[in-house]
Amino acid sequence: MTDLPNRIDIVEEGPREGFQIEAGPISTAAKIELIDALSSTGAQKIQIASFVSPKAVPGWADADEVVSGFSPRHGVEYTAIWFNERGMDRAVAHKGKLSNSAAISLSASEAFSERNLRRDLQGQRAAMVEYVRAHMAAGVPVERVIVMASFGCNFSGRVSTDAVLTAVADGLAIADDNGARIQTVTLADSMGWCSPSAVRRLVDAVRERWPDMSFALHLHDTRGQGIAAAYEGIRLGISKFDSAVAGLGGCPFAGQPGAPGNIATEELVLLAQEMGIETGINLEAMIETARLAERIVGHPLPSALLRSGSLKAFLKDN
Amino acid sequence: MTDLPNRIDIVEEGPREGFQIEAGPISTAAKIELIDALSSTGAQKIQIASFVSPKAVPGWADADEVVSGFSPRHGVEYTAIWFNERGMDRAVAHKGKLSNSAAISLSASEAFSERNLRRDLQGQRAAMVEYVRAHMAAGVPVERVIVMASFGCNFSGRVSTDAVLTAVADGLAIADDNGARIQTVTLADSMGWCSPSAVRRLVDAVRERWPDMSFALHLHDTRGQGIAAAYEGIRLGISKFDSAVAGLGGCPFAGQPGAPGNIATEELVLLAQEMGIETGINLEAMIETARLAERIVGHPLPSALLRSGSLKAFLKDN
Repeated sequence: MTDLPNRIDIVEEGPREGFQIEAGPISTAAKIELIDALSSTGAQKIQIASFVSPKAVPGWADADEVVSGFSPRHGVEYTAIWFNERGMDRAVAHKGKLSNSAAISLSASEAFSERNLRRDLQGQRAAMVEYVRAHMAAGVPVERVIVMASFGCNFSGRVSTDAVLTAVADGLAIADDNGARIQTVTLADSMGWCSPSAVRRLVDAVRERWPDMSFALHLHDTRGQGIAAAYEGIRLGISKFDSAVAGLGGCPFAGQPGAPGNIATEELVLLAQEMGIETGINLEAMIETARLAERIVGHPLPSALLRSGSLKAFLKDN
Repeated sequence: MTDLPNRIDIVEEGPREGFQIEAGPISTAAKIELIDALSSTGAQKIQIASFVSPKAVPGWADADEVVSGFSPRHGVEYTAIWFNERGMDRAVAHKGKLSNSAAISLSASEAFSERNLRRDLQGQRAAMVEYVRAHMAAGVPVERVIVMASFGCNFSGRVSTDAVLTAVADGLAIADDNGARIQTVTLADSMGWCSPSAVRRLVDAVRERWPDMSFALHLHDTRGQGIAAAYEGIRLGISKFDSAVAGLGGCPFAGQPGAPGNIATEELVLLAQEMGIETGINLEAMIETARLAERIVGHPLPSALLRSGSLKAFLKDN
């Protein structure tokens, strides 16, 4: 395990992922309570809102109120996502509280692009050129490329490694051509197809082509393979992961209501701890926050660890 | 991944594990229905009952009726467990329907031995000597050693690798001294402490000492690490696993009611399939059986895959 990182960086996406898919309605105050609880766990990056059309994602109609209302903690980076200039303008209005770093979003699946981004691949590429230009003009850095549907697509089946490589290359070229410097490329398992084997295949392929790029994994635990897939990622030296407290989340456009969401942050933290890898997150505090998340949404969430609790209570003498 | 097996052998323990811990009561007919459904999935080994005291494990008071009632399928091996001669006699009475192979059960934790086996380590070793002798005298082969609490103990904390090595050595010596030929040593995570790192540590240690022995893993998914731990086991070349349909199960003596049970068979099968490894089990049939298990117990079971379904519906063109 020579590639093993000393530390993994986790972007906690529970609020953004969770509140976009929960039937709700969940009060603005409850959203803020979860964000403030998360910032007390040691989480250093928290994705707290989505500036999208309230028609498309009613759960985020109150994004501005949520961002206005939470209490920023020193040393924590708060991020949001958006897909167009209108979203950018809303995010920029919260400069100071929100990190304004933006991401180029592409899909490795045309069918998912059409459903989730409402444009075919070519249309989305063209839109992202305009998006990057608008951000550069507004002084908002574009630092990430996100490739959705990197592991498979509920609308078109398996996604080839070539399709992912093409999307990564497209994203990097759009950035390059327009003066943006990409720091991270995220391979996103938008619909819960990941497995350790698939992580290995994909990570090997992107690394071979872009040996100096930093890749992140955004994995869903839809079929019980999420933590195993994250483990394979860590083994391969991937040190950036997205996850969601309690396993909140899931994509409202995945065509699969009720399927479990993101890998649970607390389960990822336990995995890392047992490997001797730092996350900066206090496991007990994250489990407590997972329980809070469950109370807020009002139904059981997928994380097994939130139900079982950590091993701490049992570690009597050691 | 040079050690990767072509095939893994799964012992389906859902009936035995599940009905010992479910609050129930679950009818004998429902238990039989689950067993017969499991045998139609392609599962080749099914552990269907526990011949234990009905006072200690009320859920198995009807073990004899269950074993009498199920419909044996050609090519499937049906097993049961027992811990004493009384149990052996009950199992032998079902010869013909039940495989009569027995196991030496030891614990790597003294505290768990006292609670689960009702004897300290020395007492359990002595009892197992008598147990092996009685089985040899009755012509019942003793072919497995099971080391409970191999990954940690809710009553005494972490379990050292040395304690596991000692228990394995004790079990093998008891067999050897009394003419039993052990074919498999099972490292059992009785209380849900497993992680991929722990699997690696333990498998490396037992393999170094007994390079020619076949080791099996019995893992629980109590904290979301079970499939990742199984993955690490497969990576290391382990080819024998216990699991339970839908993630049924858990140990009634683990001091942790409500904690998730065994790794779910269908999630293990999906893991293997994605690695290109055979299990002989039809994934769709196992998922359907997981749904049957959920209907039988009358509450949600832990498997994510039983809720999400397989990828088959989405694999349109490939």
